[in-house]
Amino acid sequence: MKNSNYLYLQFADVIEKQIKTGLLNVGDKLPSIREVCAETGYSMSTVSKAYYEVESRSLIESRPQSGYYVSNISARTIPEPSPSSPILKCENIDREDLIDQVYGNMMDKDITMLSLGFPSNELLPIAKLNKGMVQAMRQLPNSGTSYEEVQGNLNLRKEIARWSFSWGGSLTERDIITMPGCTSAISHCLMTLTKPGDTIITESPAYFGILQLAKSLGLYIMELPTNMTTGIELDALKKALSSKKVTLCLLMSNFSNPSGSMMPVEHKKEVVKLMEFYNIPLIEDDIHGDLYFGSSRPTNCKTYDESGIVLCCSSVSKTLAPGYRAGWVSPGKFKKEILRNKIYHTLSSPTITHEVVGDFLKNGRYENHLRKIRQILNRNCNNYINTVLESFPAGTKVSQPQGGFFLWVELDKKIDTAAFYHLAMKHNISIAPGRIFSFQNQFSNCMRLSFGLPWTNELRQSIQTLGQLAAKQL
Amino acid sequence: MKNSNYLYLQFADVIEKQIKTGLLNVGDKLPSIREVCAETGYSMSTVSKAYYEVESRSLIESRPQSGYYVSNISARTIPEPSPSSPILKCENIDREDLIDQVYGNMMDKDITMLSLGFPSNELLPIAKLNKGMVQAMRQLPNSGTSYEEVQGNLNLRKEIARWSFSWGGSLTERDIITMPGCTSAISHCLMTLTKPGDTIITESPAYFGILQLAKSLGLYIMELPTNMTTGIELDALKKALSSKKVTLCLLMSNFSNPSGSMMPVEHKKEVVKLMEFYNIPLIEDDIHGDLYFGSSRPTNCKTYDESGIVLCCSSVSKTLAPGYRAGWVSPGKFKKEILRNKIYHTLSSPTITHEVVGDFLKNGRYENHLRKIRQILNRNCNNYINTVLESFPAGTKVSQPQGGFFLWVELDKKIDTAAFYHLAMKHNISIAPGRIFSFQNQFSNCMRLSFGLPWTNELRQSIQTLGQLAAKQL
Repeated sequence: MKNSNYLYLQFADVIEKQIKTGLLNVGDKLPSIREVCAETGYSMSTVSKAYYEVESRSLIESRPQSGYYVSNISARTIPEPSPSSPILKCENIDREDLIDQVYGNMMDKDITMLSLGFPSNELLPIAKLNKGMVQAMRQLPNSGTSYEEVQGNLNLRKEIARWSFSWGGSLTERDIITMPGCTSAISHCLMTLTKPGDTIITESPAYFGILQLAKSLGLYIMELPTNMTTGIELDALKKALSSKKVTLCLLMSNFSNPSGSMMPVEHKKEVVKLMEFYNIPLIEDDIHGDLYFGSSRPTNCKTYDESGIVLCCSSVSKTLAPGYRAGWVSPGKFKKEILRNKIYHTLSSPTITHEVVGDFLKNGRYENHLRKIRQILNRNCNNYINTVLESFPAGTKVSQPQGGFFLWVELDKKIDTAAFYHLAMKHNISIAPGRIFSFQNQFSNCMRLSFGLPWTNELRQSIQTLGQLAAKQL
Repeated sequence: MKNSNYLYLQFADVIEKQIKTGLLNVGDKLPSIREVCAETGYSMSTVSKAYYEVESRSLIESRPQSGYYVSNISARTIPEPSPSSPILKCENIDREDLIDQVYGNMMDKDITMLSLGFPSNELLPIAKLNKGMVQAMRQLPNSGTSYEEVQGNLNLRKEIARWSFSWGGSLTERDIITMPGCTSAISHCLMTLTKPGDTIITESPAYFGILQLAKSLGLYIMELPTNMTTGIELDALKKALSSKKVTLCLLMSNFSNPSGSMMPVEHKKEVVKLMEFYNIPLIEDDIHGDLYFGSSRPTNCKTYDESGIVLCCSSVSKTLAPGYRAGWVSPGKFKKEILRNKIYHTLSSPTITHEVVGDFLKNGRYENHLRKIRQILNRNCNNYINTVLESFPAGTKVSQPQGGFFLWVELDKKIDTAAFYHLAMKHNISIAPGRIFSFQNQFSNCMRLSFGLPWTNELRQSIQTLGQLAAKQL
């Protein structure tokens, strides 16, 4: 239950209460928006926003040309994937061949790419971006053909700073360095702050790209126990920090890749305190932060960072235009070092696409677009969860992310998802096998499914096929 | 003297011979193009191309509304800067503060930026690139908002492969990986092939960005003696390779930054043989290769590489559009490793600008544009050399690059160009002090001047001011 001054949120809370207390039951049809308006005197806009909001909380679902119904998920207890329990040792099992296999056919249009973590083209505002490109050519000196200043496009930096208010930040353009993508931002942070042989802490499971990046820099990775709902286990983190020589932590506090976990506010605060106490930098990957399903943008660790110990990285590659290579870092007290590292390795970002993104933020188009993409991802997510629960063998566990792109699915221990990947590929379906998300022997019965693809009957069938294949394995 | 089947080149050779043999003397006016046509029966086009060609060999110069004259440079013996003689030890003097100073005011429009190595806006075909951008939005799937395949834009790769014929290469699109810039390409090569503590070989002086990049990766840099005309000294290279543990070499075989040196063909062949013999990769930075002043594109080391030991890096940042971040590497036998490193650190290049560059190469616009920019740079270079020789104290030595962007100027040993930099900045002129191009105590009486700025009276005065300042120092 949220407290809010907005009428539509208050009304949404009322509906949520009615469902939670059993006044409304699974399958019940809600009154039409028109009926509610007549009854309550609320405007059409208020009521429809309230319904959207309750839908985004997975409590009701819209059925085309029929109306809103109390959803299955509202009542169902969904079995949650197990927390991870990696050993507290830096292992280094080679996953490169498996990763090469999964991502080698990234461009094959005949394959249903449940393995890939980026928005499908249908989700991108391409026409508006094209207009922005023409505009940017007009307004940029030399139409964006020149190098930009090393810290990056001023327009974009100002808008990212303004945008930081959405998560409780108060950055200025001086606190931001642009980068050609979030991966590149994290790469610059790691290169600047570590040297080979150093140990860094990550969640477990963690995004394989980050694991491989760290490994390629000669780092040891200490994977810590992680809860699939609340993220990294704080006790384990405290213990690791106090007993081991750690150079930095790298976390996704919001809608982590691949688990979908979101750290509660108190955890975020506590992590920042720990980092300050041990004087250890935190690289925060907040690339999914804007893709929340709830009523407001979650904070991140950077929100609570007063000493500049957090380097917060993000981009628009998951929300707007991966091909624009528009990312950034707010590097806290490490600005000078990161700037130098950028000069040495990257020099400059693509001038024109960064200007387009700056304009998109400035004129409110980004906010409008995010509202749409969040709603679609939320619906997709609910549809995926429902279909997984219906089609997969009993005992299958699935995460319930509150945002982002990914479902984490835990199958029966007898199923090896690396073999399952090949099985699925025979049906032209690509999944991301769990074991690529760790350097240890973990998650071999798990997989990551991306819900960034548009929901269609074919997609439903693909997930059903996966469920049947899983059943056959048992 | 060049042998050629082209009539205009044959005629250019005749004029060169007349100057070299004293038939034409300094200050002599050449007959007008019309007169020559009448006399020889050659077409206007042939004669004017021949005059351009002789001008590009610095033998004649055009005076506005007057005609062509035998140039000063044709007869003058220009004192050549001394070869370097670094010690054969890996030193590591910190230059970061000096570099920060020189490049901190990179965007200040009131300063004459003789320190910066990129083409001024007047040299860029901005209108045509803008048209290309609109075209690329139309032809790319999703208007270039999506990720591209990891190896990079196919259109661009095909065109770079085709372009490789100009330097005697025979690459295919499979032999090329695109990168967001040449610096980024070199960064990926270094990250892939080295580990901290390794020793690499460079020329001396070497581009400070490369020195800093290597240092930031924990590498030791062995700077080798270098001739300002012919590049790295082969005897020193042989000695170093046979007696020291070296991980790789990093060279600019054409129009090196900052010395402007170009390795003779035989040196290029010999270097490749040495690399093959010792099985040591050569990272070749060929970013200036297309900016030759002579009659044909020089080869590079990659031309003679049969075993795949050369990783040849380049971009269009010095010729077309620095802000487009369009670079590449032809990685030879290291393709798989470089590709993985790209996935981990960069993932993808900016999709749309790479498509624009691909189209620009395909429809012949790049070739046309290069012809113009080469001619302008060549004239600029001659004007710079003349003005330096006229304005600087006797004993000043200056390089005579056959292409690229940079003059290397050696002043009297009593002048410290780091102090001279501050002196010049009081007159709003920025130069690149010699010592940033080495980690050893070298080149403190040298400086690098970029001739990428358009030649104007103000620019002439700026160089004259530098000359007067230098004279006052003595």
